[in-house]
Amino acid sequence: MAVVGEEVSNKQVVLKDYVPGFPKESDLEVRTITIRLKIPEGSKAVLVKNLYLSCDPYLSMRMQKPEPDRPSFVEPYKLGSPIIGFGVAKVLDSGHPNFKKGDLVWGTTEWEEYSLITSPEDLFKIEHTDVPLSYYTGILGMPGLTAYVGFHHICSPRKGDRVFVSAASGAVGQLVGQFAKLMDCYVVGSAGSKEKVDLLLTKFGFDEAFNYKEEQDLNMALKRYFPEGIDIYFENVGGKMLDSVLLNMRIHGQISVCGMISQYALEQPEGVHNLLCILVKRIHMEGFIVLDHFDQYPKFLDTVLPLIREGKITYVEDIAEGLESASAALSGIFAGRNIGKQVVVVSRE
Amino acid sequence: MAVVGEEVSNKQVVLKDYVPGFPKESDLEVRTITIRLKIPEGSKAVLVKNLYLSCDPYLSMRMQKPEPDRPSFVEPYKLGSPIIGFGVAKVLDSGHPNFKKGDLVWGTTEWEEYSLITSPEDLFKIEHTDVPLSYYTGILGMPGLTAYVGFHHICSPRKGDRVFVSAASGAVGQLVGQFAKLMDCYVVGSAGSKEKVDLLLTKFGFDEAFNYKEEQDLNMALKRYFPEGIDIYFENVGGKMLDSVLLNMRIHGQISVCGMISQYALEQPEGVHNLLCILVKRIHMEGFIVLDHFDQYPKFLDTVLPLIREGKITYVEDIAEGLESASAALSGIFAGRNIGKQVVVVSRE
Repeated sequence: MAVVGEEVSNKQVVLKDYVPGFPKESDLEVRTITIRLKIPEGSKAVLVKNLYLSCDPYLSMRMQKPEPDRPSFVEPYKLGSPIIGFGVAKVLDSGHPNFKKGDLVWGTTEWEEYSLITSPEDLFKIEHTDVPLSYYTGILGMPGLTAYVGFHHICSPRKGDRVFVSAASGAVGQLVGQFAKLMDCYVVGSAGSKEKVDLLLTKFGFDEAFNYKEEQDLNMALKRYFPEGIDIYFENVGGKMLDSVLLNMRIHGQISVCGMISQYALEQPEGVHNLLCILVKRIHMEGFIVLDHFDQYPKFLDTVLPLIREGKITYVEDIAEGLESASAALSGIFAGRNIGKQVVVVSRE
Repeated sequence: MAVVGEEVSNKQVVLKDYVPGFPKESDLEVRTITIRLKIPEGSKAVLVKNLYLSCDPYLSMRMQKPEPDRPSFVEPYKLGSPIIGFGVAKVLDSGHPNFKKGDLVWGTTEWEEYSLITSPEDLFKIEHTDVPLSYYTGILGMPGLTAYVGFHHICSPRKGDRVFVSAASGAVGQLVGQFAKLMDCYVVGSAGSKEKVDLLLTKFGFDEAFNYKEEQDLNMALKRYFPEGIDIYFENVGGKMLDSVLLNMRIHGQISVCGMISQYALEQPEGVHNLLCILVKRIHMEGFIVLDHFDQYPKFLDTVLPLIREGKITYVEDIAEGLESASAALSGIFAGRNIGKQVVVVSRE
């Protein structure tokens, strides 16, 4: 039991050097320092004990050396410091009027046992604990809001729309598919293994699903599942998949660009050849980043919490235990090793 | 003077065979048939004398052999028949209640002296003749509405926005630039010759303009003119220009996709590599086709006619005389030979 004011050891996950492509397990190391469990005198910071950390694809962008013309929306990590991401934590000490000892919060924290958070105003207080706390790294956290905003705000879905989701078993994709099914859409997902495809069909209620690694020709695969074309594409992967999707979009189709994970680690991104379809088919393609949409969080929570409680929506997590397993867990999402949302448990309370 | 009921000779411009790339002068031929200047008994057609024909980039799509996965929004032409496009014409005989002999109209007609138009309900009656009649092939016709819809409806321009227009001296581009200047935007255009660049600067009031053929590196050229990035890109060319623009877009920038002329004639379109910018910069990119927006025409006319009369907006045409010059004029727009909107005069009255 952590005692406020005590000096304790603090395990951290630290980036050793910038990574040219996707991170490997050896790119991060665990080290132990000490920390005093108390906020500095007069500060408005909060000191938290981290419980769950979120493994997200965009973290790879922060591990790359910044290049002038490499587009990124996040700052590179500081070498030798713990990496930063979303997580669930418990407040141990607070100088901020909004938070008190014992509060549960989610938001930006560091990959370590205890963190001093100097901008606590960006944290969300967790009010509903009848659902698993780890959900606030996923369905009730950043990925959940991402799926909600990207499907319902960037697109304008209508009942019966033909919806395609790539990386469909991931933290965001599994929710997009379920949101679309709740709107009586026809929903097809792609994923990278038989196990994931089975999950889409049996657990998340997708109408159809396929393993993109087993398709000789993605264009043909999409024609098989969408003989009349795609109304909405929820884009998580980019590259060749996007190129094939463009050929199969319907007139006035919509593409919500949430991620392009196939491109993040490439020195020179792949060329996409079928952009003339954007003109010919009058496609609306729009990129979004959830950070711009956090004002939607309360409304999102009001929508999704009842759906979870009534069992109308489900969520699959892949749980790694302990900070020692964090680097393997994080590098695993870029190799497609996770099944569902990848979470690292630092501590369960 | 054409007399109704008379049988007269009718010169036509006919497509000889489908064209693999852009049309050359020799791909079209002029032939002469005869036509009776009278609508069939009981028909609701109109018979018109064509005055001005519009040379538009999209016509090249109709000259290509249709391929299953080549995106197109128009039907291929019928070989051996006159080609079809927008034009200005005078009604000689009418079975339609909306039109009577002597009316001036603009809309879809054929490249010949006289045409029987069987869907006259799609024609627009020309009510204002204090401006050059040929303007209804350009600033007051399809290209004008294209510029208006593409800039004001597909984008949401704000005062002071940094606007880039490619193919800026063309039928659409010259208007987009002027619409943007009327909104106090900073406007830069690219074109393919010194003469066109001069026109942008001296005639259309662009803030800056450059000859893309003289730039070693389009990315660097754009950085020179947009050190703080581009808010709105009006896309007419596609390919390498689009790729460089993506690198220079600002966060929440908008791309209105009106054309991609550099790609129309390619067997395999060029790859565009910087689409990750759509995500990272939260770009809204949308294709549009003016055919979907003809309901805006009356409002457009009310907006633009006064601007022409007050001299607040100007328009440059490149006039070719006679159907014999039509093929050279049309193929010329793909070689960039025209300065301003390319029009073919069939007859001046």
